[in-house]
Amino acid sequence: MADEENFTETNFQSEQAFQEEPEAFEKNEVLASPTLVEVDDELITEFRELIQLHSVSVLTNLLLDLYPADIAHLINRLNNDEAGYLFNLLDADAGSQVITMIDETHRTSLYELLGRNRLSSLINKLDSDDATDLVSEMPALIAEQVLEGLDKPSQSEVQELLQYDPSTAGGIMAKEFLAVQANDTVHRAIQAVRKAAKTVKDIFLLFVVDESGKIVGEVQIKDLLLHTPNRRIRNIMNRDVITANVFLDQEEVARLFKKYDLVVLPVVRLDGTLVGKITVDDVVDVMEEEASEDMYRMVGSDASEIEKKSPFDVAKMRIPWLLASMGLSLCSGIIISFFNETLTRVILLASFMPVISAISGNTGLQAAVIITRGLALGYISPSQWRKAWWKEMRTVGLMAIVCAIVLGFVASLWSKHLSFGVVVGSSMFLSMSTAGTMGTLMPLLSKRLGFDPAITAGPFETTFQDVIGISIFLGLSTYLLSWISS
Amino acid sequence: MADEENFTETNFQSEQAFQEEPEAFEKNEVLASPTLVEVDDELITEFRELIQLHSVSVLTNLLLDLYPADIAHLINRLNNDEAGYLFNLLDADAGSQVITMIDETHRTSLYELLGRNRLSSLINKLDSDDATDLVSEMPALIAEQVLEGLDKPSQSEVQELLQYDPSTAGGIMAKEFLAVQANDTVHRAIQAVRKAAKTVKDIFLLFVVDESGKIVGEVQIKDLLLHTPNRRIRNIMNRDVITANVFLDQEEVARLFKKYDLVVLPVVRLDGTLVGKITVDDVVDVMEEEASEDMYRMVGSDASEIEKKSPFDVAKMRIPWLLASMGLSLCSGIIISFFNETLTRVILLASFMPVISAISGNTGLQAAVIITRGLALGYISPSQWRKAWWKEMRTVGLMAIVCAIVLGFVASLWSKHLSFGVVVGSSMFLSMSTAGTMGTLMPLLSKRLGFDPAITAGPFETTFQDVIGISIFLGLSTYLLSWISS
Repeated sequence: MADEENFTETNFQSEQAFQEEPEAFEKNEVLASPTLVEVDDELITEFRELIQLHSVSVLTNLLLDLYPADIAHLINRLNNDEAGYLFNLLDADAGSQVITMIDETHRTSLYELLGRNRLSSLINKLDSDDATDLVSEMPALIAEQVLEGLDKPSQSEVQELLQYDPSTAGGIMAKEFLAVQANDTVHRAIQAVRKAAKTVKDIFLLFVVDESGKIVGEVQIKDLLLHTPNRRIRNIMNRDVITANVFLDQEEVARLFKKYDLVVLPVVRLDGTLVGKITVDDVVDVMEEEASEDMYRMVGSDASEIEKKSPFDVAKMRIPWLLASMGLSLCSGIIISFFNETLTRVILLASFMPVISAISGNTGLQAAVIITRGLALGYISPSQWRKAWWKEMRTVGLMAIVCAIVLGFVASLWSKHLSFGVVVGSSMFLSMSTAGTMGTLMPLLSKRLGFDPAITAGPFETTFQDVIGISIFLGLSTYLLSWISS
Repeated sequence: MADEENFTETNFQSEQAFQEEPEAFEKNEVLASPTLVEVDDELITEFRELIQLHSVSVLTNLLLDLYPADIAHLINRLNNDEAGYLFNLLDADAGSQVITMIDETHRTSLYELLGRNRLSSLINKLDSDDATDLVSEMPALIAEQVLEGLDKPSQSEVQELLQYDPSTAGGIMAKEFLAVQANDTVHRAIQAVRKAAKTVKDIFLLFVVDESGKIVGEVQIKDLLLHTPNRRIRNIMNRDVITANVFLDQEEVARLFKKYDLVVLPVVRLDGTLVGKITVDDVVDVMEEEASEDMYRMVGSDASEIEKKSPFDVAKMRIPWLLASMGLSLCSGIIISFFNETLTRVILLASFMPVISAISGNTGLQAAVIITRGLALGYISPSQWRKAWWKEMRTVGLMAIVCAIVLGFVASLWSKHLSFGVVVGSSMFLSMSTAGTMGTLMPLLSKRLGFDPAITAGPFETTFQDVIGISIFLGLSTYLLSWISS
């Protein structure tokens, strides 16, 4: 009997919830239906002209036709004044979404341009993770004033999130999650969803906690439709919840999402208390960031910050790497100077130096990239490195044989001396094998020592192979040529 | 009145749905709670020993404690016989999940090992996208027999999906989506969810179609809880649906997910008819695949297939690249032979050749990677390339000045001739500037011409810079030195 009562209550609840709807419907009407538009030069010119003419109403209507992501794309292509003008035409909803998506240069100029109150009200509309990202990049003075202007709950959420390292689970999580007690009924959970639906945009999962706030399960929203309202959540929840603790590195978080095909991941303190959630769209950004970082490091540059800095800053960042690389390749120069006598005697050797260094550089780099990427994606674990190393070594061995024969043949023809071909070919074989060995071992070693393996798979690798390749080539030539001529 | 009737019906429906629950609950009990286990050498040794002892019951219990992803990880570390033995201990649910996650070598051996009936029943349990992936990689004969063994609906789904190019939206979509008519009521939509919940694992969104099957909107499951059962879906749906057509390239699909923070994307035919869905976990795989492909191409290798092939196959794939690279660097050799006279006269020039080629190679590669990655992530569009090019050129200019001064200084000290330093420094500046220009323009050009820019950001780039750098260096030296000595 009590059950049925509960039942009816749920329904009336549903009727009441309905009263809010007209507003939602109206909003839908006002927003109309955005269309996917290609933000091309033509569209940008059109907006530029309208901004110069101050055609507020035309612009406002055009903006209603665009998705926030496309508006952000458009603003990125305008100058700061135009961007500010256009941004001011956006309503609070669109504005709060757009500001998270435009590039940092434009955002910084908006921080100066918009009043503190406007900034606070935009940030109030954001999920706590996005709000925290923005506040943390603002100049300290503005950040403080904006924080003060936030609603109390948002304020304390952002203040909490600011304390975590931005590259950990705590640093990327949001506080907007929905949790119910294991002893709650389905009916109560539905009420909780209805209440939260006003403030939380996407709800796919409910987390389930015990009395002390520790996570014990999760329930998909669809499951609430499958059970009677008086059923206890503990009886319908999924108990196999994968969680991340607040200190977990974001790269590990991304790996959890990938491995277990997650959409939402609850974040817990060390004692298991639920404190936040990470959604898959944040992780997608993390994954691209990590992949870019690896690629940039491979060429002795650093992270995607590059997009945002001035050429002067970028040059300042890259020059130390180039100079280090220069120092290393001067070692090749010194080695060459030791063999001046051989070189002057057989000047044709000089013509084969670029080949030896290019091919052994490539071989080392290939091996290093294969291992580095394998480590990053988790194919290769540092504990089972032998298999990967051995496979790469056999590959390199085969390639070295082919390249040595081809180059030896070319060298014999060019010099019209078989012995010269033998010297060049053997050097090619030896320096490729060394390059392959170093190329596989260096990333594994740096992973063991706690460095980022991507650093070893770059210009250092190739320059280092240069030194070794040239030493082998000139050393072997001097030895073999003196032996042949004696 | 009619409304209230509807209402009540929904509730009884809910009571009826409840009858299925005991089964679900029981299943939960049987599966127990898996725990996150580190698949380390110790665990693998333990499993190996138990497999040798044929301890079926112990192994079965241990497997119940593992997530399918971890079981797959474990199987990847075993040999084919052990893997087959362990796989046979899995029930149909676990088995169907595990088989999609193990590596291709082990999977191929399972295709031979398992009977056609067992394979068909495993594949019946999979979502159509995963089922299609497996069927498409099976040997033709097995694939045919397995297809025949599938349930009729699965069979026709897989046959449909097999027709799409695997790297397009059609090739990665699944047929398991839930669609309701715009004129349906919330009540009917809830019934549809209940019915689908048996077969579709994760339901977060309902798609809304018109009479002809064209997509017109979408509804979050939680929205069904917010409205009265008799309300029409058309009044509560979100009309701003982003769709992909079946022929869209998977890289573009990934970009849509990233740009619009999507979780599920409906796939439509050219006329707008809804034919499938793509979920974010598939896209995460696509993104990693594309990033890996770019990295591998940069070093003249190809895609992640490498992980699966024998050293012989890998070597066969990489050798043509190495030989092409060899041919290109032999051009450097020919150029050097033109300057034999200069070299023999000032043999110290030979010592500076590796520095010139290493630094201009690095500079070109950095520029190429920055532009390639920018193109891949969409920061840089081929139409607005001038800005990116100009920024990189200014950066390179600054770096070239610094490197030229440092190297010129070193060369003066080493040779004890200021003029020698001037020659080396000017060559450094010129070859770095050329490298930067080529490094930025080549990826942009290949994007324009429809090639993958990643190919230009690799060993060809550096070897090509070698040829140019050495020509500039030796040419300029010969000219300036003859001018100085005259």
